[in-house]
Amino acid sequence: MKKVYLVGAGPGDPGLITVKALELIKKADVIIYDRLVSKDLLKHAKEGAELIYVGKREGRHSFTQEEINKLLLEKAEEGRIVVRLKGGDPFVLGRGGEEAMVLVKAGIDYEVVPGVTSAIAAPAAAGIPLTDRRYASSFAVVTGQEEPGKKERLDYGAIGTDTIVLLMGVSNLGRIVEDLMRTRSRDTPVAIIERGTTEDQRVITSTLGEVVEKAREMGVRPPAVIVVGDVVRLREILGK
Amino acid sequence: MKKVYLVGAGPGDPGLITVKALELIKKADVIIYDRLVSKDLLKHAKEGAELIYVGKREGRHSFTQEEINKLLLEKAEEGRIVVRLKGGDPFVLGRGGEEAMVLVKAGIDYEVVPGVTSAIAAPAAAGIPLTDRRYASSFAVVTGQEEPGKKERLDYGAIGTDTIVLLMGVSNLGRIVEDLMRTRSRDTPVAIIERGTTEDQRVITSTLGEVVEKAREMGVRPPAVIVVGDVVRLREILGK
Repeated sequence: MKKVYLVGAGPGDPGLITVKALELIKKADVIIYDRLVSKDLLKHAKEGAELIYVGKREGRHSFTQEEINKLLLEKAEEGRIVVRLKGGDPFVLGRGGEEAMVLVKAGIDYEVVPGVTSAIAAPAAAGIPLTDRRYASSFAVVTGQEEPGKKERLDYGAIGTDTIVLLMGVSNLGRIVEDLMRTRSRDTPVAIIERGTTEDQRVITSTLGEVVEKAREMGVRPPAVIVVGDVVRLREILGK
Repeated sequence: MKKVYLVGAGPGDPGLITVKALELIKKADVIIYDRLVSKDLLKHAKEGAELIYVGKREGRHSFTQEEINKLLLEKAEEGRIVVRLKGGDPFVLGRGGEEAMVLVKAGIDYEVVPGVTSAIAAPAAAGIPLTDRRYASSFAVVTGQEEPGKKERLDYGAIGTDTIVLLMGVSNLGRIVEDLMRTRSRDTPVAIIERGTTEDQRVITSTLGEVVEKAREMGVRPPAVIVVGDVVRLREILGK
């Protein structure tokens, strides 16, 4: 049966891909990959494999989600081994569910191969466990970039977990922090981890009250993971 | 320098361990592992490696966290390569942060190797993405088992994310559901995934209003991941 593998490439460090995902990269006839996939991983593709980049490109046409869906169907219909390779985990804020849906509705089988999400791994690499017996028994993972045209506005102040992790939140930081300060103190610790788990990782720590200014000063840029909560303090001991 | 590797073994399927974690298992002199670590992974340990099981044992003495901490220090002091292998991700509700802290305070280096958490992978394997453009832009991961003696009672009803994932929640399900029904409708879909991503995976779907009874009827037992929220409906299409 025709099939597409929806595969998580992990958070950045190429060693953090799963064994199963790496085997699929080696076996694939077609690899359709995103911007946050490490280039080192693509070196494992077999000779003659078709590598298709569908991530954002500055100043040039980027693939829309509809075009990616169409591409998945086309390649699968050719009966080849198709790997859809996504940064992190395919089902965490990555539209993997939507792609799976498109495949199933077209009568094409899919298999999801979960990956290590940057939401957990980037803080870990910065010495920040998302949970801790004393500080946090829950964490939330939230998009910092809402779907345009969505009816209900996402209220970051209502999340309610001890720790909050924001993905894709850099450009929207001002608005997010404003929401959060409605329910959390301005002294709440915040960390921003740029390019987490890679050799270029940079970590900035601050507080809700000051992080917007500090992010501006430090020239923070995506991709970055933002962590809010008392667990950020653990970095003082566990960070390197 | 003396060092301990805090390593995630992934959610159950041995193919979902990371490349880096598998390399460390092969290289380790000592592997200190938990109950939820797949036995297939331990086969990769080198000849003569010391494998120490510190998980729960029915009817026999189990290691306390203090004993585990002591063991980590002892083995590290011997100058050998020590891998502390934990189910899922070491920093997600797994006391990995606490173990790292103990090591750092004793002047021993640590390195965390994040893993695929069952909180994300078990739902995925059941056809349930935790986020979806239409249904959910946030999810929470919460312990279902509170630390005894903790001052503040965890209020599950105060969690405001679209999706909630509970780990270790089976024995406490009645109380958790009661909390959740204070803020969510009794029709809210719920899935329980036992032994997620393994060959013995079993999935039970229900609603907040009926799940306690259904879990009893079906004889649900740990380890299980519980998912609450509209994304559970996606299983009707994406489940297998």
